Amino acid sequence: MNGPRALAFDVFGTVVDWRSSVIRELEEFGQRHGLQQDWPSFADRWRAGYAPAMDRVRRGDLPWTRIDDLHRIILTELLEGAGVTASDRDVDELNRAWHRLDPWPDTVAGLTRLKEKFTITTLSNGNMSLLTNMAKRAGLPWDCVISAELFHHYKPDPQAYLGCADLLGVPPEALMLVAAHPGDLRSARAAGLRTGYVARPLEYGPGREPHRVEPDEFDVTATDFVDLAEQLGAGAET
Amino acid sequence: MNGPRALAFDVFGTVVDWRSSVIRELEEFGQRHGLQQDWPSFADRWRAGYAPAMDRVRRGDLPWTRIDDLHRIILTELLEGAGVTASDRDVDELNRAWHRLDPWPDTVAGLTRLKEKFTITTLSNGNMSLLTNMAKRAGLPWDCVISAELFHHYKPDPQAYLGCADLLGVPPEALMLVAAHPGDLRSARAAGLRTGYVARPLEYGPGREPHRVEPDEFDVTATDFVDLAEQLGAGAET
Repeated sequence: MNGPRALAFDVFGTVVDWRSSVIRELEEFGQRHGLQQDWPSFADRWRAGYAPAMDRVRRGDLPWTRIDDLHRIILTELLEGAGVTASDRDVDELNRAWHRLDPWPDTVAGLTRLKEKFTITTLSNGNMSLLTNMAKRAGLPWDCVISAELFHHYKPDPQAYLGCADLLGVPPEALMLVAAHPGDLRSARAAGLRTGYVARPLEYGPGREPHRVEPDEFDVTATDFVDLAEQLGAGAET
Repeated sequence: MNGPRALAFDVFGTVVDWRSSVIRELEEFGQRHGLQQDWPSFADRWRAGYAPAMDRVRRGDLPWTRIDDLHRIILTELLEGAGVTASDRDVDELNRAWHRLDPWPDTVAGLTRLKEKFTITTLSNGNMSLLTNMAKRAGLPWDCVISAELFHHYKPDPQAYLGCADLLGVPPEALMLVAAHPGDLRSARAAGLRTGYVARPLEYGPGREPHRVEPDEFDVTATDFVDLAEQLGAGAET
């Protein structure tokens, strides 16, 4: 194929291991407040509330609402359901766990190589401050940070994919979405982008069924970001 | 003062030396095409066309138009006025000179120090792809790239300053605009931001009258970005 000029990365699950990071933050919160809970299950339910909340925005049932605020609404419900009381300040601080997610072990090395050949950006439903704070803490070497917040359209709305290409000044076919989620990639492809699938079999914890992806379904299928760099001819082997 | 949490930088003139860079690009263009012109004067006229063009957008005489396209319109007029003919492709390439501006000698060292303590972003009228390409080429270590393009409001419209604070998730008083232009800073202050003035006496070439700034007019007045880092207590002395 004629190569892409820019790569846009899905973030939650693709770049960072949200589940381990959020469980860690919840356990610390529990210890500080002397609480016993099934924190892995709590993390999974927090994440599970995210797609329905975005869909309410996408359908117009809610006005534009950033992910920080959607996360906060879901968290408040979960804490109430679990009979946990905490100050607004402590809940705000816990809610910002999503700004402090850790990258997968290959993420920084792979992005550093990919940046030598391509413009690399986020294209996430996370809001700008979340993505910026996360990148600063984790050392993610983005050339720029782009969020669905800039378009007031969450993925998989086509406005998010096309808006990203427009801001980067490239035609859609010169932009590749990199994601661990086939649905995100299929929507990007429908909008005219190239697609790179990266397997993240541990995203939802150990022992889960991996996504089913046909061998030639996407332009590139990679095992991690270093493999993606290798396949795209980016950066020196280390 | 209670310190800012984030710094937003004006770019043309403050971060990069647009004049020397554009003159260099024009001279190379002239050599390739066998043209004799007063290229410094050409560069100054190209830049001089920029504020009136933005004002046409700000007044609503033109729909939203990004700087790349405003630069292209001005360049076409200047080339026609000088009797220069060139292919669309060559003119496009010359127009992208604004993506290839060199930083001032202290820029990267100062930003690197400031980044240790603050979130650092652009807040420029330049479009996102221009700012992203510039940062990539010059090694500017932004935490994120923010442009007036995201708000469809050029500075000094308050929407640009307030929109920047909103995307960063900080109140206006926790954001400092850093600029070499008193007018930009006064508009930022009127919108509720903090202000840092950095003198760039060579922006318009040697032998020009410096801007007049009262000693206490802005929250900080610095001689360059390293001095700014020093005054704001950011990063290690080198």
